[in-house]
Parts: sequence; structure tokens; C-alpha cells
Amino acid sequence: MIHTPICDLLGIQYPIFQGAMAWISDAKLAAAVSNAGGLGVIAAGGAPADLVADQIKRAKDLTDKPFGVNVMLMSPNAGEVAKVVAELKPAVVTTGAGNASAFAKMWIDAGIDWIPVVPSIAVAVKSVRNGARAVIAEGGESGGHVGELTTMCLVPQICDAVNVPVLAAGGIGDGRGIAAAFMLGAVGVQAGTRFLVARECGVHQNYKNKIIKTKEIDSVVTGKRLGHPVRSLKTPFARKFLQYEYDSSITNEQLEELGAGSLRVAAVEGDNENGSFMAGQIAGLVKKEQSALEIITEMFAEAEKILHRAEQWVK
Amino acid sequence: MIHTPICDLLGIQYPIFQGAMAWISDAKLAAAVSNAGGLGVIAAGGAPADLVADQIKRAKDLTDKPFGVNVMLMSPNAGEVAKVVAELKPAVVTTGAGNASAFAKMWIDAGIDWIPVVPSIAVAVKSVRNGARAVIAEGGESGGHVGELTTMCLVPQICDAVNVPVLAAGGIGDGRGIAAAFMLGAVGVQAGTRFLVARECGVHQNYKNKIIKTKEIDSVVTGKRLGHPVRSLKTPFARKFLQYEYDSSITNEQLEELGAGSLRVAAVEGDNENGSFMAGQIAGLVKKEQSALEIITEMFAEAEKILHRAEQWVK
Repeated sequence: MIHTPICDLLGIQYPIFQGAMAWISDAKLAAAVSNAGGLGVIAAGGAPADLVADQIKRAKDLTDKPFGVNVMLMSPNAGEVAKVVAELKPAVVTTGAGNASAFAKMWIDAGIDWIPVVPSIAVAVKSVRNGARAVIAEGGESGGHVGELTTMCLVPQICDAVNVPVLAAGGIGDGRGIAAAFMLGAVGVQAGTRFLVARECGVHQNYKNKIIKTKEIDSVVTGKRLGHPVRSLKTPFARKFLQYEYDSSITNEQLEELGAGSLRVAAVEGDNENGSFMAGQIAGLVKKEQSALEIITEMFAEAEKILHRAEQWVK
Repeated sequence: MIHTPICDLLGIQYPIFQGAMAWISDAKLAAAVSNAGGLGVIAAGGAPADLVADQIKRAKDLTDKPFGVNVMLMSPNAGEVAKVVAELKPAVVTTGAGNASAFAKMWIDAGIDWIPVVPSIAVAVKSVRNGARAVIAEGGESGGHVGELTTMCLVPQICDAVNVPVLAAGGIGDGRGIAAAFMLGAVGVQAGTRFLVARECGVHQNYKNKIIKTKEIDSVVTGKRLGHPVRSLKTPFARKFLQYEYDSSITNEQLEELGAGSLRVAAVEGDNENGSFMAGQIAGLVKKEQSALEIITEMFAEAEKILHRAEQWVK
């Protein structure tokens, strides 16, 4: 059994969070991950506050284990969602892509553990100063909104800078990723892409099929010009976006418009032409649909085996 | 002592290559790394073949340990350099950024171990088919010419695809990086940025000072539009290049011209304005000038300690 300080802090069996995926990680997936011993996370995304409230209540019906909610700080209604979260008190709130300092105190006062996703030392240090119980150092190999630094470079530099537990995200698709994250100083991981193909994940089957078939080189980052880069699979949509991005006759507003709604079209409608199929680089490793429990137990059994023979090259 | 199959294969003490850096890693640095027990690598870069020959001869004078030469396949005179290498027979030849299949047989017939830097499964598999003795899976967090995939994602996927020793490059700045690389399946590492500040490295002192002062977020990739992306520090040159890159009134030829010679200006002249200071994301971890021997022994002592306590979270 792998057991780290983040397990004790949150009362979870395995030190793994399921990464929040807008339009995808709902109460059902989050509860399945929590029931399997990890920490499931509901993604609020751009959803209305009452819908987020419904999802939190539903997750409470589906599991008596701790789970989390991710508040998308870039969303226009982030303030309302933040309040709903404070009222309904999931065990954990994660945040990313924006400044959570306006909400942190409210959550902490409500007894919720606030654990932000951080792309840099400065954000990590500031978050800990504002009460973060742990941080998730997320490398740019992850899917969806990404930072610049990779997991290999970000995790050790964050570990040197803060005195709270650090989780590694980005590139964690199997037990090797977990074991590597531990070597870098992390005491837990967050995985998104691998849970995309969980049997309990309600994403469109076309999306799952794409993840299962994808090769290691099949993802691309778009949106750098707009200042909020996103990693997705190289689909017709992504290629078109990238082409427009390097065309300075296309305005930023036109680019934003092109991107709007493209994740929903992929996740809900499975539209192979117009959808943005966000996924991490590690998608190439993901080969089959499994239950959340199978995913977690398989990943940690492998990690344990690897850690067990870690000294094989030390003579 | 850490000892892996790559040590036996090449007759080196520590499983570490010094990454080739054009205009920077010369006979002196390569010999220092080899004398310290790693594998030093002379970068041919765009240098004339007779200059590369001089460097190989000089390295042979400076060390009786194995060393390598990196042939820059994009260079117009790659063919001549490849021939000189086959004649002078360094222990290892590394290659990157291009197709080495025209030269592989010549090197192998000369008894040289050919170990290419690979950015994808397809290139790795093809190289092994063409006789590569090992491959270096290099993540895009590294400095200089970079691929898309990060170390965390590339290394395990390459390990699954080939049956030769795999070295990990990109993000390897200390013992944590080495230990993490081993967990991903690598049996060795290649480090460039950390050796930039080796006392035996003849790069301009301004370059070393920049590496030592740099923060984790201070590097950027330019040249994506041209199809050969390069990671360097965010200097006035890099910012200007990036701005031009998104300006479609600037032609690709103009962009190429802007980049030409910029590494030499940084490495040789230390020009903070016009130089391209190539470096990996891990530069933020590099804090001081040390001898090659100090760098290697410190990195491996740390890796050994970390591997020794790898099972600390297994209960």
C-alpha cells in the first residue's frame, strides 16, 4: 500500500486526485473515483451555480468519501460558484487559471481544504501564504488549460519553495508517472486524461475512442497568442485554430469566438470536425476503458512494484 | 554507486551524457566530463569539418576515457563532418534534428556507438532498426532545439517501444531528475544546462551568469512557425523573435535571418541584447558554477539518496 501525508490530510486511501475536466468530470465520475479511494473532483467549468450545487448534492448521495470541486476562476460566474461551494462544503476545492485570493478565506473559514493548481513558484508561494493546504504543480504536458513549465521541471522547483504537500499533475498516466513524481518530491498525483476513459466517465464515446487510439505525438497547444494556451488532440478544429493563430489578419476576438463552445461540442456531441478534444500528452499511454477502481488499483500496484525495485541500479 | 547497463555498454562510470551545445561544448568541456566519469560530448554544430577533427584530436589528448561527438544533421556540411567522425572514431556519436540514416552504417562499421536523440516513438523505432545502440529520449523542456513531447511523457512511451537502453534528457538538473528518469524506465540521463555552468565550460561569463540568476519561468520557445522550435531564455532577442513570429507580414526568410548567428553572439560574445541564450527550463535549479566532477558526483549522490528512500511511502 502506498500511503503519503496527503492521504492523512484528506482521509483518502490513494494519493491521487482526478483532474477536473469541464463538461466531463461530473458527480458520477467524481463519486466513482472517491469510492475507489482517490479524490474525485467535480469540474464547475462555466456551469451556472445552481447546476454546480446539484452536482455537489448528487455526489454526496453517491459517496460518503471526500471529494472535491474545481472552481474555474476565468468563468464570469466564478463568484457565485465560489459561494455555492462554501455553502455546500465539499472536502476540497481546487482552483486554476486565475486568482483565487478573493475566495480562499471564505472556503477556509467554511472548513474546506483549498488546494490550487499552480504553474509557477510565485503562484505556489502566494497560495500557501493565503492558506492553501497543499498545491498541485501542473506541467504543460497536461490537457486543457496549460502552463509553460513541464512536470519534470516544475515539481522539484515548487517542492523547494513551499512547505505544504505537493501533488504532481501532467504526464501521470501509469505507475511509472506516480513513482517519478515521488522522486521529484511530490507526495501525490493528479491525473485527468486516464480518467477520461473511465467507465463511469460520461464523456461522448467518440472522445473516449480518440483517447484510446491517439499516439504520443497527437496533441498540440493552441491559444498561446491569446495568453491562455490549451492542449488538445490534433483534430481538424485544432489545426484550423493554429493556422488562424499565426495569421495576423485574424483578430484575437475572432480567435476567441472560434474557440468558444468547442469543448462542449467534443465532450457532449462527440463532433470530430468542430470539437476541441482536450487531452494530455500521456494519452498515448492510455489503451483501454476501465472502471475508476481498476485504473487506480492498477496504477498504484505498478508504482509500488517500481518503487520496490528503485535501488536496482545502486550497487 | 549507481551503475546501469549504459555504463557497461560504453565503459563509463556514471550513466550521464553531457548534452551537446553548439558553440559551447568543445573538447575541453567534453574531456572534463569524461574524466569525471560521465560521457562528454563535443558539439559539431555548424563548424567546418577540419575544426571538428581538431576538437576530436584535442579531446583524445585531454582524456583517455570514452567521449562522444554530436553531428548536427541540419548543418549544410553534415556529410563532411560525418565522414571525419567515422575516420577519427570517437566512442560515441550522437545525432539530433534530422535523418541520420545516410551515415549510421558508416559509423557503425567504424565501430562507433551511434546513439541518436529522439523526439518520438517513430524516430526511436526507426533508429534502432538502423543500428542505434541506445536512444536519448529528449523532452521539450530541454534547451536549444526541442521536440513537442515532455520528458515525463516521452520516456515511458519510448521505453515501451524499443529494446535498447533509453536515456532521458530534458529537465535533468539534479539527483531528483535522475531518480525520476529511472522510474520512467531510463537507465541514464543527458544533461546540458547544468554543464553550461561547469568551470571547464568556455561559454561567455555573461551566459553563465544568466543561467545562475534565471528563474523557473524565464525560458520560452521560439521558431515554432519555422518548424524548428528552440528554447532559450526570455531575453530582448527572444521577445523580439516571438513578436515577429506572430506577425504574418514578416516572412519566414526574414525570421530565419533574424535567428542566424544569434547563439554565437550569446555564447562567444555574451551579448545580452542580441544573443540567443539557449537553456532548458531546469535552469532555475542551477545555482552555482562547479567543476564537471563536482556536478556529476553531487547529482549522483543525491540520486542515490533518493532511490534509497524510494519506498518511504510504501507501507
